Amino acid sequence: MNLFQAVEYKDGKLHIIDQTKLPLEEVEIVTDDLERIADAIEKLEVRGAPAIGVTAAYALAIAVNKSSKKDYSTVFDIAYNRIAKTRPTAVNLFYALDEMKKAFTQNENEADLSQILLQKAIVIHEQDKLLCENIATNGLEIFKKKSRVLTHCHTGALATGGNGTALNIIRNAFANGLVEHVYADETRPLFQGSRLTAWELDKLGIPFSFNTDSTAAVLMSQGKVDLVITGADRIAVNGDSANKIGTYNLAVLCHYHKIPFYIAAPSTTIDKSCRSGSEIKIELRSNSELTQVRGTKITKEEYQAYCPAFDVTPNHLIAAIITEKEVHKPPFDFTNV
Amino acid sequence: MNLFQAVEYKDGKLHIIDQTKLPLEEVEIVTDDLERIADAIEKLEVRGAPAIGVTAAYALAIAVNKSSKKDYSTVFDIAYNRIAKTRPTAVNLFYALDEMKKAFTQNENEADLSQILLQKAIVIHEQDKLLCENIATNGLEIFKKKSRVLTHCHTGALATGGNGTALNIIRNAFANGLVEHVYADETRPLFQGSRLTAWELDKLGIPFSFNTDSTAAVLMSQGKVDLVITGADRIAVNGDSANKIGTYNLAVLCHYHKIPFYIAAPSTTIDKSCRSGSEIKIELRSNSELTQVRGTKITKEEYQAYCPAFDVTPNHLIAAIITEKEVHKPPFDFTNV
Repeated sequence: MNLFQAVEYKDGKLHIIDQTKLPLEEVEIVTDDLERIADAIEKLEVRGAPAIGVTAAYALAIAVNKSSKKDYSTVFDIAYNRIAKTRPTAVNLFYALDEMKKAFTQNENEADLSQILLQKAIVIHEQDKLLCENIATNGLEIFKKKSRVLTHCHTGALATGGNGTALNIIRNAFANGLVEHVYADETRPLFQGSRLTAWELDKLGIPFSFNTDSTAAVLMSQGKVDLVITGADRIAVNGDSANKIGTYNLAVLCHYHKIPFYIAAPSTTIDKSCRSGSEIKIELRSNSELTQVRGTKITKEEYQAYCPAFDVTPNHLIAAIITEKEVHKPPFDFTNV
Repeated sequence: MNLFQAVEYKDGKLHIIDQTKLPLEEVEIVTDDLERIADAIEKLEVRGAPAIGVTAAYALAIAVNKSSKKDYSTVFDIAYNRIAKTRPTAVNLFYALDEMKKAFTQNENEADLSQILLQKAIVIHEQDKLLCENIATNGLEIFKKKSRVLTHCHTGALATGGNGTALNIIRNAFANGLVEHVYADETRPLFQGSRLTAWELDKLGIPFSFNTDSTAAVLMSQGKVDLVITGADRIAVNGDSANKIGTYNLAVLCHYHKIPFYIAAPSTTIDKSCRSGSEIKIELRSNSELTQVRGTKITKEEYQAYCPAFDVTPNHLIAAIITEKEVHKPPFDFTNV
């Protein structure tokens, strides 16, 4: 049973919690429209690499399901290409799309093709739940004592099809008496930390506070942080990890302050085609993400902003990468994982 | 002649550009009311350690000037105590208050006391202009070639009684063909970088872009930053420097990426009573600075935020401290500066 359900399939429609409105409003988007779903991914109404993957799988199944045309192949391809365009960095998106494509190709001539695709999407969703549980179990190993943990962005239930990655480890560690306090970076520009991580930590009753991203350095220098754990959106074979902008900053701070820095992600986040971080394509977001907040202008739109959505943390700054399989220690080699 | 005038005294009143409204609106506060001036400092309508000092000096002069009472001593003390409460970290505030107190004590029985105080405030203002010019001249020394410079918060004309500190060095270096591009950290929580630094750089025609604070790490790892320079709000005798939250983060990033990190400030920022950074009192700001932006709610007010206004960069991370006197190199000892 999920703590919070980012995405749910019910009666032919996708139910998505609008994460851009949390925690101030809890609003559900209910749709079976491909463009609306693609829009939800692009606008970050649904976000978090694993949750995007699950959403993508359902989107393809729904597109075929509701199509009245006989030409399923065209319908599938249109849906596939539209969703593939939404967010370039999240590898789980392409993993899910490719799993769906395999299912489509293998069953294209079956009478119950649309049911098969729906079942496949449900399997991808269920698998993700299981991955989350195993990550949470494996992650306990990094807690040597009751700890003060700092995290960045949001990696909880809402970011996945299950109960989360890094934040799920924190939840499990707290349940086992191993977490004293969580520091949540607010995570500019979209405040996933002060909005979503805070919302989940509050609902879970875990003691926390949030801070501006650059305040993490002060917390570390004051000796208040025992370990840092974040998620990842794409992991190269050598362990270099792309995650929300600001993660690399944290990893450097950890190095300087001799604090272990961990990544937690399902193995579906590993991109076998990327040998190192330099091959990871980084999505650039628009100026307006920095010039406005929820429609309120901060500064002039004409001022040029540099706004990468992600950064890449090199493997040598990572103490371990926790997947559903194990706690991988450096030197990382994910060729056969 | 100032480029931009943060504070100006005209016909018995103080004219303050409301910096909270820049760059979207250029609004002037015109007042001779002590409480309104104190409020302007507390609300950061006027900000920047040197500009606060100048404002404080005028506030005391105006309070005595407009008083109809004969008991100037009580009027002065009330004004002194009210302004002293506004911002605890900016040492220039206390420097200016104490200079005014000396002038008051030495001339308490003079018939033209109020004119003497006003003249003293004008001298403090003029001195600050001169300090800014000398800082800009001395700062040229750190530019070995045409450079890409990153800065944090805002240290331009609006932050001082003159043309600025760190940003004035950048302006001067640009005028001398030594600046290729300026990266401005947006500077959470109050966006002084994307609002005020961007506004001045734009008006000065200096090529710039702005970025979230944690993006500075990425710019450095991409080899795009040749040097970092910021201001300071209080400098201890050993060189430890308090400045806007996020400055220490930058200094650690510079250390890791082998980029020189500089501080620029007038020598009035040096607090002889502080032997080291551990003695510097850090102002904590309210939760709402992180839960809202310009009145727009981001997250729930009830979530606990940790919101220090400043952090302290230890001396060993600072390549040099530029004052109006010279470019001070480590090991720093400001006992006799």
